[in-house]
Amino acid sequence: MDRIDFRSDTVSWPTPAMRHAMANAPVGDDVYGEDPTVNKLEALAAEMVGKEAGLFVASGTMGNLTAILAHGRRGDGAIVGEDSHTFRAEAGGMAVLGGIVPNPLPTDVYGRMDLAAVQNAIYPDDPHFPNNRLILVENSYGAKGGYPIEPAYFQQIRQIADKNGMIVHMDGARIFNAAVALNLDPRELTQHVDSVTFCLSKGLCAPMGSVLCGTAEFIAQARRARKLVGGAMRQAGVMAAAGIVALTEMVERLADDHAHAKTLANGLAQIPGLIVQPELVKTNMFFFALDEAAPVTPAEFVQRLRDEANIWLSGGYSRTFRAVTHYWIQEADVALFVQTARAILQ
Amino acid sequence: MDRIDFRSDTVSWPTPAMRHAMANAPVGDDVYGEDPTVNKLEALAAEMVGKEAGLFVASGTMGNLTAILAHGRRGDGAIVGEDSHTFRAEAGGMAVLGGIVPNPLPTDVYGRMDLAAVQNAIYPDDPHFPNNRLILVENSYGAKGGYPIEPAYFQQIRQIADKNGMIVHMDGARIFNAAVALNLDPRELTQHVDSVTFCLSKGLCAPMGSVLCGTAEFIAQARRARKLVGGAMRQAGVMAAAGIVALTEMVERLADDHAHAKTLANGLAQIPGLIVQPELVKTNMFFFALDEAAPVTPAEFVQRLRDEANIWLSGGYSRTFRAVTHYWIQEADVALFVQTARAILQ
Amino acid sequence: MDRIDFRSDTVSWPTPAMRHAMANAPVGDDVYGEDPTVNKLEALAAEMVGKEAGLFVASGTMGNLTAILAHGRRGDGAIVGEDSHTFRAEAGGMAVLGGIVPNPLPTDVYGRMDLAAVQNAIYPDDPHFPNNRLILVENSYGAKGGYPIEPAYFQQIRQIADKNGMIVHMDGARIFNAAVALNLDPRELTQHVDSVTFCLSKGLCAPMGSVLCGTAEFIAQARRARKLVGGAMRQAGVMAAAGIVALTEMVERLADDHAHAKTLANGLAQIPGLIVQPELVKTNMFFFALDEAAPVTPAEFVQRLRDEANIWLSGGYSRTFRAVTHYWIQEADVALFVQTARAILQ
Amino acid sequence: MDRIDFRSDTVSWPTPAMRHAMANAPVGDDVYGEDPTVNKLEALAAEMVGKEAGLFVASGTMGNLTAILAHGRRGDGAIVGEDSHTFRAEAGGMAVLGGIVPNPLPTDVYGRMDLAAVQNAIYPDDPHFPNNRLILVENSYGAKGGYPIEPAYFQQIRQIADKNGMIVHMDGARIFNAAVALNLDPRELTQHVDSVTFCLSKGLCAPMGSVLCGTAEFIAQARRARKLVGGAMRQAGVMAAAGIVALTEMVERLADDHAHAKTLANGLAQIPGLIVQPELVKTNMFFFALDEAAPVTPAEFVQRLRDEANIWLSGGYSRTFRAVTHYWIQEADVALFVQTARAILQ
Repeated sequence: MDRIDFRSDTVSWPTPAMRHAMANAPVGDDVYGEDPTVNKLEALAAEMVGKEAGLFVASGTMGNLTAILAHGRRGDGAIVGEDSHTFRAEAGGMAVLGGIVPNPLPTDVYGRMDLAAVQNAIYPDDPHFPNNRLILVENSYGAKGGYPIEPAYFQQIRQIADKNGMIVHMDGARIFNAAVALNLDPRELTQHVDSVTFCLSKGLCAPMGSVLCGTAEFIAQARRARKLVGGAMRQAGVMAAAGIVALTEMVERLADDHAHAKTLANGLAQIPGLIVQPELVKTNMFFFALDEAAPVTPAEFVQRLRDEANIWLSGGYSRTFRAVTHYWIQEADVALFVQTARAILQ
Repeated sequence: MDRIDFRSDTVSWPTPAMRHAMANAPVGDDVYGEDPTVNKLEALAAEMVGKEAGLFVASGTMGNLTAILAHGRRGDGAIVGEDSHTFRAEAGGMAVLGGIVPNPLPTDVYGRMDLAAVQNAIYPDDPHFPNNRLILVENSYGAKGGYPIEPAYFQQIRQIADKNGMIVHMDGARIFNAAVALNLDPRELTQHVDSVTFCLSKGLCAPMGSVLCGTAEFIAQARRARKLVGGAMRQAGVMAAAGIVALTEMVERLADDHAHAKTLANGLAQIPGLIVQPELVKTNMFFFALDEAAPVTPAEFVQRLRDEANIWLSGGYSRTFRAVTHYWIQEADVALFVQTARAILQ
Repeated sequence: MDRIDFRSDTVSWPTPAMRHAMANAPVGDDVYGEDPTVNKLEALAAEMVGKEAGLFVASGTMGNLTAILAHGRRGDGAIVGEDSHTFRAEAGGMAVLGGIVPNPLPTDVYGRMDLAAVQNAIYPDDPHFPNNRLILVENSYGAKGGYPIEPAYFQQIRQIADKNGMIVHMDGARIFNAAVALNLDPRELTQHVDSVTFCLSKGLCAPMGSVLCGTAEFIAQARRARKLVGGAMRQAGVMAAAGIVALTEMVERLADDHAHAKTLANGLAQIPGLIVQPELVKTNMFFFALDEAAPVTPAEFVQRLRDEANIWLSGGYSRTFRAVTHYWIQEADVALFVQTARAILQ
Repeated sequence: MDRIDFRSDTVSWPTPAMRHAMANAPVGDDVYGEDPTVNKLEALAAEMVGKEAGLFVASGTMGNLTAILAHGRRGDGAIVGEDSHTFRAEAGGMAVLGGIVPNPLPTDVYGRMDLAAVQNAIYPDDPHFPNNRLILVENSYGAKGGYPIEPAYFQQIRQIADKNGMIVHMDGARIFNAAVALNLDPRELTQHVDSVTFCLSKGLCAPMGSVLCGTAEFIAQARRARKLVGGAMRQAGVMAAAGIVALTEMVERLADDHAHAKTLANGLAQIPGLIVQPELVKTNMFFFALDEAAPVTPAEFVQRLRDEANIWLSGGYSRTFRAVTHYWIQEADVALFVQTARAILQ
C-alpha cells in the first residue's frame, strides 16, 4: 500500500499523462538549442508569467542560482527574507558560488519584509559596503505556510528597487499556488519583478525541473550560468514534455490541494493538543504545533501516524510540523489524518 | 527525413527501450534518497567502474564540477590538460565557482600530459603558489579524436599524485568507448583514479545525465556540491531508468560506432583534398582537415554535405572538422558520407 | 590650527615616538621572513593575547578576512552579529572572496548574540545548508558604542562552538580598550577564542596595521591567505616599529580616552536637545542623538561644531552621531565640545 | 657585516632620504581620502605613467589583484603569459578570489606571447567558454630575466583587445627598469594599456607599496576592491612619503643597477662551468646556469658564495640561478661575486 505523504509536495509522482508525454516527446540536443519540446516549454512558461523568454533548469535552486549569477556581479548585495528559501535552504549558493552578499531581513507573518527596513538596508555608496543590486522575494512564501502575497507588496518593492537602480528576482517555486489562491492571473504577481523561477515539480507533479523567466537578454546570460553549473542537458525534451503537461493540465486543480489543506487545518484545529491557525491556510500547506501538554512526544506523534495509518509527516525533532497537500492526496486521506491524529492525542 | 548527424554523439536520441523504461520506472523523491531507480542506477554505475558509490548528475560538466568542488578547497591548484574538456569547455567552472586554480599542461597526440611536466608542475610549498591538490585526466580524450589512453599512463599519474598527496579525478565522459576500444574492463581504466565521471548520454544514448563515482565519503561531499549547484532533482528515477538501459544494453555495441568511424576515416582518407589519419581512429570520432588546395571552402563543404545528403557536420570556420558516429548512424550513412564528400571534392 | 577630530579613533596620527621608531627600525624582506622588527612585533602581539603566533596585516579588515579564509572553506557558514564590523563594514569579503555564508543574528544592547539563538542557528547536517564552521565575535563592540563584553559571554560561545566542532574568531580591533575598561588582562578576553585580530592603529595610534593571532598552524595558513590578498609587504618593519610602540607605550593610557569619553557623555547629557546614555559609555566612544525638538538639523549641528570650534563629528544624515576619543583629544577639547554644543542648542 | 644580497631587488632597504621623509610626512586618514601624502603620491604616480588616477596599494600582487577584480567580473577569462608573475606567483588570486579564468599562453625568450596565439585564444561567444575580458601583460618580464619589452608589442596587443572589446592590464612591477633600459618615457610603455601597476619597493627601494593607475572611474572601482581585500590603510602617508622619494630620486639611477648586472653577466660568462647569455641582460637581473660538468653542486655553489664572501643568491635546488642588482649592490660587490665564483669553480 502506498504511503500517504504529507511531508512535501515535492514527493508528488508524475501523472500518467506525463509518463505518456515523456514517452512520445520529440527531442533534440538542447545544448544546440534544437530540442523542440524544450523550446515549446520555455515559450509557454514565459508567456504564462508575462516574460520574454524562459530557461528550463533542473530545479528551483538552480533557477534561483542562475538568476542571481546572471543578475549579480561578484561583490553585489542581495536583500532577502531571512527565512526565504533562497537564503535558508539553497546552501548559501549566492555567496558560495557567486560572491553575492546576502543581507537578510525579518519577514512578517505573511512572508513580507518591512518596506522601511528594505529601504534602510540600501547601502550607502561606500567601499565598506557591497553594491546595491538585488532584492529577492518569494511567493507563495514557504516558511510562512505557503502564504500567497498580494501584488501590492511587490509593487512597493519594485518602487524601492527602481529608486535605487536595483533588480528584483522572485522565487516563485509555487507561484501558481499563489495565483490560484488569490484568483489572479500569475502575471499580476510577476509583473513587478525582473525575473521569476517557478517549479514544474511540487504541486504541478512533473518529476523534475523549473523554468526561469525574464527578458531575452537576461535569459541569454542565465543560459551561460546554467552551462557553468552543469545544468545544460541534452535531449531534455523528455522532461520538458512532463513540464508542458504540468503547465497545461495541472494548474487549475491546485485549488483542490488548497481545499484539502484547509479541510485538514480545520479538522486538526478541533483536536485538543494541536495548535493550528486555519485562517492562515490559503494554499497547499501549513504549519501546526503539538501542545506541551499533549500526551505524546513529537517523535511519537510522527511515528504513530506512520504506523497506524501510513501517513507521513516531516519533523518530530521540534514541536512544529508542516503538512502539505498535493495531487496524490485525496479527501479521504485528509479525513484519515484527522481521525488518526484525534485518536493518538486522546 | 531525419538528418544524418555526425556533429556529435550528444545528438543521439533515446532508444525505444529507454522511452519504455522511463514510462514505467518506479520513482520517489531523490532529495530524500527515496528514488529506487536512481539508487539502482547509482549502485550499478559505481560497480561498473569499481567504486564504492555513485551520484546521478545532470551532465558531464556537473559531474566534473561537483567532483572538483568536493575534492578541492578554495585556493587549491589543479593540473589539467590544456585541451581537456574540463579546462577548455566547462566555462572555467573550477575557477569561477570553486576558486580552484587551473594549471594547464600540453598533451601529446594521444591526450597525455608529459609525466616530467606533471612532476615539474607540482608547486613548492610556498604562499606564492596554490596548494597541490588535484590532477585531472580524461579518457577517451576528446580533443585528440577520442583517443583511448591505456591504464599504464594513469598508473604513472597515480604515482605522482601519491608522492605529493594529491587526488586524481577522471573525466570519463566516454570511458566505455575507451574500455571497448582497448578491450578492457572499465575498472582497469578507473582503478588508478580517486573519482570518475561518465556520461549516460553521448554514445550510450540516454537523453541526459552522468554518474560521478568514488568513495562513499567523497560522494557524500559531492552530493552537497550537487545541491549547491542546483542539481538535486526530485523524481529523477524517470531519467535514471534510461541510464540503466544505457549501462546494461548500450555499452558493448559501442564497437559498432568505432567500426563505423574507422570505415569512415578510411573512406575519407582515399579522397584527394582531405587529410585524415585513420591510424589514430580508435573510438567513435576523429578529426580531419580540408586541404588548402581543395576546390571548396570549409563552409561550402559543410553546406553541400547538408544540402546534398542531409549529412550534418560541425565546423566550417576553420579547415578542421570532427566526425562522430553513434547509435543512429548506420553503415549506409557512412557510405553516403564518403560518396558525397568524394563528389563535392572532385 | 589642527582640527579636533571626534569622528573616529582611526584618524589618530602616529606619535613622535612612533615616527622615531620608524626612522630607525632594522628591517629585512618580510616575504622571506627576514624582517626582525616584524618578527618582534608578531611575537609580542601573540604573547599579549596569549596565542602561539602572530601575523602583521595591513588592516583590521585584512586580519578578519585572512582569518576567515584560513579557518573556513568554501561553503562553510559563519554565525555573526548582524551589526558587527565583520558582517556590516567589510564589504562582505567573507562571502565575496571566500565563499563563506554569513548567518547574521541580532545583538543585544551590549553587542551580544542571544545564546539560544546561536545554538538555534547551527545548521542540521543536510546538503540544503552550509557547513557549521565559524562563530565570529567582536570586542569591544563598535556598533554598540564600543561596549566591552565580559569573558563569560565568550566562554558560553566557546561551549556552543565546541559542542558543534566550530571555530571562534574574534574581531578584537579594540580589544585593548575592552581590557582596560574591564581592568582585565587581554588574555582573559581572548582565551576562549581560536584567533583574534586587533588593530595597532585606532586608539593605539600606529599609522596602519593590525595583528592576527592564533596557533602557529593557523597562522601559517593565514600567511598564505595574506599573500593571496596581496597583503605581504617587504620591509614592513618600518611600520611594525610603530606597532611595537603602540603595544608597549599606548595601551595603558587608553584609560584617559575612556575618561574623556565619559566626561563628554556626561556633559552632553546635560544639554537639552541631546539624548545620551552615559551609563553605557565604558570605552572611548558612544552614540548620541539629536532630539526631534532640537532647534537645529543634524547637518546644521555638525556644520556649526566644525565652523565654530573646529570640532569634527561624523554623521549628519540621521539624528544619531558617534563621538570617539583618542590620544589627540585632550580634556580641553572635551570641554570645548560640550560648551559649543550647548551654545548651538540654546 | 651586511650581506651582499643578489637574491632579489625586493630585499632593498629604504634609503636614508626615505627614512627622513617617513619621519616627517604630513598624514591623515586615507580611508577618508584625507592623507595629503598619499594623495600626492597617487597623483604623481598617475602622471608619470600617463593615467588619470592612481591608487596606493600594499604590494604588486595587491595592485594586480585589485585591477583584475575591478576590470573583470566572475566568469570572465584572462589571457596571460604562462610564466608571468600574475599567473605563476600570485597564488592564483584571480581565480581563487575573483572567479576569473586564466588562459595562459607560452611566451618567447623576451616574455612576449605570440600574437597569433593571443588572437586564437579569444573564445567564441558560447556558454562553454568564459567571457573574453582581459589580456594581462608584464614589463619588464621577470621570468625572462627582466627583459624590457618594446612598445610595439603592446600596441599590437591593444589592437587585438580593441577588436574584441577587451581590457589590457600591465603588471609593470619594474616598468621603470624597462623605461630606463629602453631610454623611453614610461608613458610610451603604458600608453597602450588600460591600467598598470608598478612597485615602489624593488629597485626603487621604498619599504613597501605599489601604485595602480588607470582612469578615474576604474580607480574608483579598484578602491572598492582594495577595501574588500583589506588593503585600505589609515595614515598611509608615512609609507607614501617613501614612495614619493622612490619616484623622484630613485628612477634614473636604475641605470647603475643595469650596468652592474651587465658587468656581472659579462664577468660570469668568462668563467668555465657557468652558462650566461649577457646579450639578454638589459635591466637589473638575469638567469644563469651551472654546467653539468661544474666541480660543485648547485647547493654547494650557493653555500660557498655565502660562506666565503657573504654573497647571497637564490636557488640551489636546480642548476639555474637568478642574480639581481639594486641600490645596495656596488661595483665592488659585483667584482667580488665574479672573483669568488671563479675561485669556487676552479
